[in-house]
Amino acid sequence: MKALIISADNFEDTELLVPYYRLKEEGIEVVVASLNHGAITGKHGYEVPVDKTLNEVNSDDYAILVLPGGAAPADVRKEPTALDITRDFFLKNKPVAAICHGPQVLISAGLMKGRRATCYKSVADELKEAGAIYEDLEVVVDANLVTSRQPGDLPAFMREMMKQLGL
Amino acid sequence: MKALIISADNFEDTELLVPYYRLKEEGIEVVVASLNHGAITGKHGYEVPVDKTLNEVNSDDYAILVLPGGAAPADVRKEPTALDITRDFFLKNKPVAAICHGPQVLISAGLMKGRRATCYKSVADELKEAGAIYEDLEVVVDANLVTSRQPGDLPAFMREMMKQLGL
Repeated sequence: MKALIISADNFEDTELLVPYYRLKEEGIEVVVASLNHGAITGKHGYEVPVDKTLNEVNSDDYAILVLPGGAAPADVRKEPTALDITRDFFLKNKPVAAICHGPQVLISAGLMKGRRATCYKSVADELKEAGAIYEDLEVVVDANLVTSRQPGDLPAFMREMMKQLGL
Repeated sequence: MKALIISADNFEDTELLVPYYRLKEEGIEVVVASLNHGAITGKHGYEVPVDKTLNEVNSDDYAILVLPGGAAPADVRKEPTALDITRDFFLKNKPVAAICHGPQVLISAGLMKGRRATCYKSVADELKEAGAIYEDLEVVVDANLVTSRQPGDLPAFMREMMKQLGL
């Protein structure tokens, strides 16, 4: 089983690294995709190697998509390839887990209409304007979609993310 | 079930936060103990509230002790109360999970003689001098003792830590 994390520089470090290590704990191969080759650096200075650029990703290879927060989603949402990959996960009803500012990518992909979800408080208005049913909870699960608000929600976010994978 | 993390300022952020969130994911109450009340700050700037000072800890309340790395263990190892707590976990054969510089606390507590263990590479000589059988592996399990080398070992460290708790 393989998992895909899409992010960019200035990601919220724990929101990328906690799922990254959690998936690996289960023996799942984790691929980090971003705009360019090399490495991406989090707001707190952690560096994560980029395994693939967005153009190199075949979404069929992955069982789940994880979208961490921080300032990274502001860059990721401008990339049509990232939006295509995200839509592909939804089309195939595969799990997508987005936290904090991560749901901004889902908004830009036009995937939030009528979906129950949460996000970082400063993103809530934008999420509602995109047609989502916003809930201020540590985790919201709507079919294939798992969303959380902030780093403190990571335990609940991980619990539901693993359930989506049957683990 | 309750878990105890003993650390101090300048902890390695992921080595504290990844176990912290992982244990909470399982519904385990996690108590962070340190030298003083307030909060401790990691090398990467994450702040974690201190739930108890070392003197307020009753080790009987906890199923497992976690010792993260970074520069924190250099301070923790100077605290006789921290060493007493650690010895108590060993006496009762309860799980102790130490990563990176975390095993320095076990060295100061005089607990490493004849034990198989690993640690951060710069701590290896000290560990051997304390009588441990050092192994350069991502995780070493010797009865109740789980040790790892560095943040990249966190998936294996978490896997064995959870096994110790029967999870």
